[in-house]
Amino acid sequence: MDSTIEQLNAFFNPRSVAVVGATKKINKAGHVIFKNFVENKRRGVLKGEIFPVNPYEDSILGFTCYPSLTKIPEEIELVVIVVPANIVPQIMEDAATKKVKAVVIISSGFSEIGKHELENKIVSIAKRAGIRILGPNCLGVYDSKTGVDMLFLPETKILTTGEEVIATPRPLPGKMAIVTQSGAFGVAALDYLAGRQMGISKFVSFGNKCDVDEAEMLEYLLYDSETKVILLYVEDIKSGRKFIEVAKKVTKRKPIVAIKSGKTAAGARAAASHTGAMAGSDQIYNAVFAQTGIIRAHDMEEFFDTGKALAMQPPAVGKNIGIITDAGGPGVMAVDECELKRLNVKRFSDATIKKFEKLKEEGKIPKFATYLNPVDVTGSVTSEMFEYAAEILFQDPEIHGVIVLGLHHVPALQEDFIDKVANVANKYVKPVVACDIGETEMALHTRLRFDKLGIPAYPSPEDAARAMNALVKYGLYLKKNGCLQEYVEDFLKSKQK
Amino acid sequence: MDSTIEQLNAFFNPRSVAVVGATKKINKAGHVIFKNFVENKRRGVLKGEIFPVNPYEDSILGFTCYPSLTKIPEEIELVVIVVPANIVPQIMEDAATKKVKAVVIISSGFSEIGKHELENKIVSIAKRAGIRILGPNCLGVYDSKTGVDMLFLPETKILTTGEEVIATPRPLPGKMAIVTQSGAFGVAALDYLAGRQMGISKFVSFGNKCDVDEAEMLEYLLYDSETKVILLYVEDIKSGRKFIEVAKKVTKRKPIVAIKSGKTAAGARAAASHTGAMAGSDQIYNAVFAQTGIIRAHDMEEFFDTGKALAMQPPAVGKNIGIITDAGGPGVMAVDECELKRLNVKRFSDATIKKFEKLKEEGKIPKFATYLNPVDVTGSVTSEMFEYAAEILFQDPEIHGVIVLGLHHVPALQEDFIDKVANVANKYVKPVVACDIGETEMALHTRLRFDKLGIPAYPSPEDAARAMNALVKYGLYLKKNGCLQEYVEDFLKSKQK
Repeated sequence: MDSTIEQLNAFFNPRSVAVVGATKKINKAGHVIFKNFVENKRRGVLKGEIFPVNPYEDSILGFTCYPSLTKIPEEIELVVIVVPANIVPQIMEDAATKKVKAVVIISSGFSEIGKHELENKIVSIAKRAGIRILGPNCLGVYDSKTGVDMLFLPETKILTTGEEVIATPRPLPGKMAIVTQSGAFGVAALDYLAGRQMGISKFVSFGNKCDVDEAEMLEYLLYDSETKVILLYVEDIKSGRKFIEVAKKVTKRKPIVAIKSGKTAAGARAAASHTGAMAGSDQIYNAVFAQTGIIRAHDMEEFFDTGKALAMQPPAVGKNIGIITDAGGPGVMAVDECELKRLNVKRFSDATIKKFEKLKEEGKIPKFATYLNPVDVTGSVTSEMFEYAAEILFQDPEIHGVIVLGLHHVPALQEDFIDKVANVANKYVKPVVACDIGETEMALHTRLRFDKLGIPAYPSPEDAARAMNALVKYGLYLKKNGCLQEYVEDFLKSKQK
Repeated sequence: MDSTIEQLNAFFNPRSVAVVGATKKINKAGHVIFKNFVENKRRGVLKGEIFPVNPYEDSILGFTCYPSLTKIPEEIELVVIVVPANIVPQIMEDAATKKVKAVVIISSGFSEIGKHELENKIVSIAKRAGIRILGPNCLGVYDSKTGVDMLFLPETKILTTGEEVIATPRPLPGKMAIVTQSGAFGVAALDYLAGRQMGISKFVSFGNKCDVDEAEMLEYLLYDSETKVILLYVEDIKSGRKFIEVAKKVTKRKPIVAIKSGKTAAGARAAASHTGAMAGSDQIYNAVFAQTGIIRAHDMEEFFDTGKALAMQPPAVGKNIGIITDAGGPGVMAVDECELKRLNVKRFSDATIKKFEKLKEEGKIPKFATYLNPVDVTGSVTSEMFEYAAEILFQDPEIHGVIVLGLHHVPALQEDFIDKVANVANKYVKPVVACDIGETEMALHTRLRFDKLGIPAYPSPEDAARAMNALVKYGLYLKKNGCLQEYVEDFLKSKQK
C-alpha cells in the first residue's frame, strides 16, 4: 500500500497542479478553484506550480493559460477537471499522455445520473495510465496546510440589504479530517466547524468514488501526521472486505467517527436516487462499525460533538463517570443520559466521599452541597469549589471520566473556574468534557474558553454525556485490542506539540 | 377552579408587591429583585405599586422602606420573600395579618435539605390565611408583559479582560411559557431562548412546590391569553390524578412539551438528593404523558425545538411528509429521521410527480432534479425552484407536512428563496419547518429569516425532522380527541394578531 499512499499524496500536496476549465468568468467553478490556488500560492501556503488550461483564454489572473494539458511544458502531478462531462474522456487521454499522477473530477453528469458508460470510460483510461481519480461529481480536496483548495462554492454572499456575509467558510487548521460522500454535507460541515471554531486537517469529497474509495482514503489518513481523528460521511461502502481490513488497522491508532445515512428503507431509496448508492441493510453497517471499532454517530450533532471530544481528550479506560455540577436539574439530565448510554454514574467510594466531607467541614464547599455523584456544589459555587471538586474526582482511580457542568448564571462564579478546572485536568490523563447552557454572550464565552484550554464544551448536558460516551466506547475498544497505552502515549505526545 | 385562577393571577399581575428582604447592597438577591421591579415600574411596564420591606433601611432606590409588612399603609397582593429560611414563618404571619393573596418564597433551606417541619409550618400559616405560595427554594416569576421579574441572577458579568457581557438575559415577549421545577435549568432556558431569539410569555420556577403545583399552573396557563405553548421541566409530579385531569384539559387547547429528568435509577437518585423528588418509574411517566397528550422531549435540544415548532406552526393532520432539498446527503438524513420517528416519506402521488415532470420539461427545475420524495432540486437550485416545488407539495392533499432543506452554500441560491417559500406556505394551513446547516453568518441569517417569517428553522436535518414529528404527533392527538379543527382555528386567529 505504500505506493498507494504516495499516489494519494498527489491529491493533497502536489508539486504541480493544472486546472482544466479554469476561466476568467467569475462565479464559474473553474474560476473560483483556480483563484483559490492562485491566492494560496501568493500567500506562500501552496508550494507547487499552478497552470490554467483553457483553449479560449491567453492568461488567467496573471498566469499563462494553456490550450490543453499536453501543451504545458512542465510535469504535472495533479489535474483538477471542471469541464462538461462529455469532454472529460478527452482530458483524461491528455492526462495519460502527460503522465499525470492524480485527477480530481469536479464535474457531474456521470453514474449519478445513470451515465455509467461514460464513467467506465474515464476509469479505464485512468487504469491504463496509472492515474488515480477522485470523483467524479465531487467537491474535491481542501487541505488547511498545503493550500490545496478546490471548493468552488461562493465564500461570501450578498444579502438583499447589500451586506456581504460569509457563506462557505474554511475552518482553521486542526486535527480532524472530513471524508464525505456527500459534497453538500461536506461543505455544510465546514460551515459548522468554522462557526464552532473547530479545526480540520483535510477535507475530501468523494462523490461517485469511481476509483479512490473510503478504504484507501482511510489508509492514507492513517499515515497523515496532521490528522488525529477521521470524520466519515457515507451512504454506501464499496469493497466491504477491504474497508473492514483497513478500518480495523486505522481505528487502533486513530478514531473514525461515521455517520451512515440511508438507514431506513425510505432513506436508502433517497440515497439511491441521489448518488446511486446501494445502501444495504443497516444492521450490516452496524455490525461492520462495531467490528472495526468505528464510532457510529446517530445524528449530525453527535457526529461533530464526538469528533471534537476525540480530538481534544484521551479515551477513558472504564465506564465510571463522575459529574460535578452547580445546577441540580442539568446534573440529573447528565446522569440520565450517561446511564441511558450504559455508562455508570455510581455512588463515589467512601474514600472520595470522605474527602468531600472534609471540604464541607473546612467550609470549602457549601453546607448544602451533595456529593454522592453528582457532586452538586450548588448555586453558591465559587471557582475554587470547582477546583477542589475536580481535584478529588481526578484523583479517584475508580472514576474514569469527568463531566463538568459549569452553568455560568450563578452569582459568585467567575470565568477563572474554567482555568482552574483545566489546570487540574492537565495533571492527569483522564478525559473531561464540559457543559454550559445558553446562547448569549457569557455562555458562548464559557464554552469557547473551555475549548481553548483543551476541554471540549457542549451546550447541553446530554451532548456532554454523549461526548463522554464516545470517549469511553473508544477507550474500551482500544483496551480490548491491546493498543490503549500506545494510543494514549501518542495522544499525549501530539498534545505537547 | 376560577377562584384559583384569580388567586394565581396575583403572581403575574399584582396590584401591589412588597419585597421582604429588599436591600441597598448590590449583588444581594433582595437588591436585584427590588431593582427589577423599580426599573420596570419606571419604564411604565409594571402597573402595580411596589414596597421594599427591611427593618434596617429607610429607603431603597428612592422608595420608602418599611420595617415590616404590617407597617405598609396600603393593601398588598403579592409578597416576595428573600430572607433566611428561619425568619420566613414570621413573615408569613405578617402576610396573613396583611391579608396578602400570594407569596413567592425565593429563600432556600426548607424540605430540599430535609427541613420538612419548617416548610410545613409556612404551609399551615398559608392555608389558614388563604395565601397561595410559590416555592420555596425557587426563582419565582418573570412575566414579559406585566414586568414582574424576580430573577436575581446577575444580568451581566465582567470577564477578566474587563469586558461586561450578558450572563442572564431576558427573552423577548413571545408565546411560550416556561414552567420549571429546576431554577437552574429555568434560567439556562431563558439564556438559550434569548440567544435563539425565541420569545416567552411567562416564566415560573416552582422549587419545592409546597403549595402551587404543576396542575394548578397548567390550568392557569390554559386561560392565559399570552401563552400558546407550555414548556414544562419536572423531576417528579405531585398529585398525579389532578395533574392528569388538568393536563388532558389543557392539551386539547394548548400543547404541553415536557422534559422529565430522573429517568434512570441513577438519575432518580440524583433528583432525590437535589430536590427531594421521588421520581417514580419512568414507564409511569411515559404512560401519563401519552394518556394526557403531553409531548415528551428526549433531551434539552428537542425540548426547545419542539416548543418552537408548536409556537410557530399548526399541527399536521397526518403522517405523510414531503421533503424539498438542494442537498442530497442532508435530504437522506431528514428522510431517515422522519422514518425512524414513524413518519412516512413515501413516493409522491402520480399527480404530483407529473407536476414535477412538467416543471422539468419547461426547464423550471434542473434536468437532474429528482422528485420521488424528497424533491432534490440539486446544487443548481434558484429561489424560484424552491417556490415551484413548495407550491406543488403544499397543494398535494396527501402530504401533511413539508420539510424544506435550504442549504445556502450553493452558488445561485439567494436569500429571497426564504420569502418565496414563506409566501407559498402562508396560503395553506399545512405545517412547514426548515433547515440550513452551518454556524457562520449566512447560515445564522438564513435560519433567523425563516424564523421571522414564521417558519421554524433548525441547524440539522434531524432536528427539523424531529420538530415535524412533534407537529404530527400533536395533530394526531387533537384529531383523535375531536379538537383539531377548533385548535387550528384558534391558532390561525392568534397568528393574524
